[in-house]
Amino acid sequence: MGFGTVGSSVAKILCQRSNTHLRLTHVLNRNVARKKVDWLPASVQWTENIDDILSSDADIVVEVMGGLQPTEDWIRRALQSGKSVVTANKQLIAHCGPELIVLARQKNQQIQFGASVAGGVPVISGLHEGLAGDELFKIRGILNGTCNYILSQIEANGIPFATALREAQKLGFAEADPTEDIEGLDARAKLAILARVGLHCYVQPESIMARSIAPIDTVDFEYANQLGCTIRQISWAELKTAPKTESHNKDNELFAAVRPALVELSSPLARVEGSQNLVVATGTYGGETVFGGHGAGGHPTAVAVVSDILAIARSKQAAMTLTTTDAGQPIETTPTVSADFTAKHYLRFLVKDRPGIIATLATILSENGINIDSVLQKPGCPKSHLPFLITLEECKASLVEQALKQLNALDFLVQPCLHMPIL
Amino acid sequence: MGFGTVGSSVAKILCQRSNTHLRLTHVLNRNVARKKVDWLPASVQWTENIDDILSSDADIVVEVMGGLQPTEDWIRRALQSGKSVVTANKQLIAHCGPELIVLARQKNQQIQFGASVAGGVPVISGLHEGLAGDELFKIRGILNGTCNYILSQIEANGIPFATALREAQKLGFAEADPTEDIEGLDARAKLAILARVGLHCYVQPESIMARSIAPIDTVDFEYANQLGCTIRQISWAELKTAPKTESHNKDNELFAAVRPALVELSSPLARVEGSQNLVVATGTYGGETVFGGHGAGGHPTAVAVVSDILAIARSKQAAMTLTTTDAGQPIETTPTVSADFTAKHYLRFLVKDRPGIIATLATILSENGINIDSVLQKPGCPKSHLPFLITLEECKASLVEQALKQLNALDFLVQPCLHMPIL
Repeated sequence: MGFGTVGSSVAKILCQRSNTHLRLTHVLNRNVARKKVDWLPASVQWTENIDDILSSDADIVVEVMGGLQPTEDWIRRALQSGKSVVTANKQLIAHCGPELIVLARQKNQQIQFGASVAGGVPVISGLHEGLAGDELFKIRGILNGTCNYILSQIEANGIPFATALREAQKLGFAEADPTEDIEGLDARAKLAILARVGLHCYVQPESIMARSIAPIDTVDFEYANQLGCTIRQISWAELKTAPKTESHNKDNELFAAVRPALVELSSPLARVEGSQNLVVATGTYGGETVFGGHGAGGHPTAVAVVSDILAIARSKQAAMTLTTTDAGQPIETTPTVSADFTAKHYLRFLVKDRPGIIATLATILSENGINIDSVLQKPGCPKSHLPFLITLEECKASLVEQALKQLNALDFLVQPCLHMPIL
Repeated sequence: MGFGTVGSSVAKILCQRSNTHLRLTHVLNRNVARKKVDWLPASVQWTENIDDILSSDADIVVEVMGGLQPTEDWIRRALQSGKSVVTANKQLIAHCGPELIVLARQKNQQIQFGASVAGGVPVISGLHEGLAGDELFKIRGILNGTCNYILSQIEANGIPFATALREAQKLGFAEADPTEDIEGLDARAKLAILARVGLHCYVQPESIMARSIAPIDTVDFEYANQLGCTIRQISWAELKTAPKTESHNKDNELFAAVRPALVELSSPLARVEGSQNLVVATGTYGGETVFGGHGAGGHPTAVAVVSDILAIARSKQAAMTLTTTDAGQPIETTPTVSADFTAKHYLRFLVKDRPGIIATLATILSENGINIDSVLQKPGCPKSHLPFLITLEECKASLVEQALKQLNALDFLVQPCLHMPIL
């Protein structure tokens, strides 16, 4: 349901991967005729009518059309008709996720929403499964790529907020009406979902304080820098006391806010660039764990959607066969393994200095078809143990290894050449 | 099985959490008498005999004793007797993981090994589930905390490798025999596991090139810095061509190596400090995704083990009830939500300058019980629009909000004060 940027990316991944056990059956969109593409199998039914989907034998309904209505109704009807649901709809999940989960469970179905927070960054499954063994008490993150892009631009180019916003809009990083992003309403819906999944706290997004990034000016970055900090839109949720499960009761207090804040330059949050997202989860036992990556965009979000589809498929199959299954897992291959990366290379020599050393080394490298990029020599070293550096232009590691056999035999070397790739 | 650092952490988490549906039944260890602790329930059986466990009605066997034998035999026997297995044993999984997975499946059981790579960082579940929808073709990571600690120390303190190693050994960051770590044998076992889970390539650890970090000297960090780089032990696996599932065949070539390498200072790999671990997975659709955190230590590794136990428990229950279940999930609470963080604060004013402004502001802050930390003023600004900064010592945000009501009413303010917490 929904054949926009994310929807068509999902369809593309489903077609390109040989997930033979996953079959795309329907595409629903308003005015569906104008959406038709030729790269989907002819068997796919294009429709504007939700009933076509509900009455079909499809097992999973993917909702990537957004909005609260009619989306919520349709998702309820899908669950009620015995279909599982995958959605990327943060506002819907933030507002009625718990009810939908209960409904899904009543119907022996699932609703998955990994794409609703941080796009392609698998933070929902990370909190729910990967860190299930911990007791998390703090989540901090950069959950809105638009704000992060704008703040990075103010910082990097010293331009005022209004200019940065306009440029972000031109480039498609901000919407025509940027209120949801700038004022923190988008991020607080995501934070409400993370608080639920990671801290087991049920919070309505509206109860989370949100402050605009609009008052941030270039001068604030100058002051922040003087304090060893930068400025980011930070989404922050923290249990007042580290959780002991005994105290998990209604007297619990949760700090939660989405607001611009100063973060130390050494923090992973300070290093999030452009429209990237990052989440730092802190647990009683495991300390800080970081998840980062592309928080938006058709393809990354579609990856999260397809991952959720696969998770449901796995568990449906497991339930049917009363066992675990890896159906739909890519086939494992036994590849030829080599270490023959193509890269720039770092060769550090330690030599007993005498005239003609560079010439000798350069000749051998050249005979092996290798180009020198630079030669560096630290001043003030003893002639008898002179370290110096040759960097090589991109070439295969095997070429270098071959040349090294000759180089390491040279009598002026105090020790074998140290060879490292430059990534 | 195994009541060392990780084993006792697992026991501690199982006892402290109210996972009422998880019950620790046995602890197995050599010379078990000296291991007994008083904080485990009296119902726990302490034993040296594997048969006590195999003949019990335990559903899941947790192996955190390490080594290849008798561990492998015992794990096989556990699976054969209809128990699922959770293990943190990288060498075992790297060498015979696939066979054990097949055996588990035959017996309708599971074997989970999330703790075998990167300790508490949920990268195995991240690759296997969170990014299942992508087609990954490259994995790069810092998988050995000992090497990263030693390299960071050489870099930070300009000490030779041998000194850094000795200090790491003194502090317990390196073992008495550090060969496995230094020579990259530990990391390549982990890389073999990641290549299997993320790239669907079956590789024996021995077929992966491993190079020592021992030749790295302080001079190499100086040269690396001149090139805008630092030096890290990098574990790298990359499919020669981005995967199209059609080409997933035996002609596939995999680049794989564990070796010291130069990484650009701007790369997330360059910023991994001390004994932290980090994995960057690159996919055809989702681009780069980063997982980072504590790669070792009793508690973080135990978190990964308990997460695996919970995953098995969930799926066992789901299989029994033919539905999904959240049994054992912490109870969701509805907390009081506030944004009243305690933090340092940033107050940026824009004023029409005149004498006495600082005194007025300072008086109001002081009357509200707030201490000023610093006052900063950028030189060369117009008197009519003078921006200046007051930072506050740690206090509750609500105190600041209260003071701001008074401050923002002052007639010399050109615009309301910008208030941000300093994290």
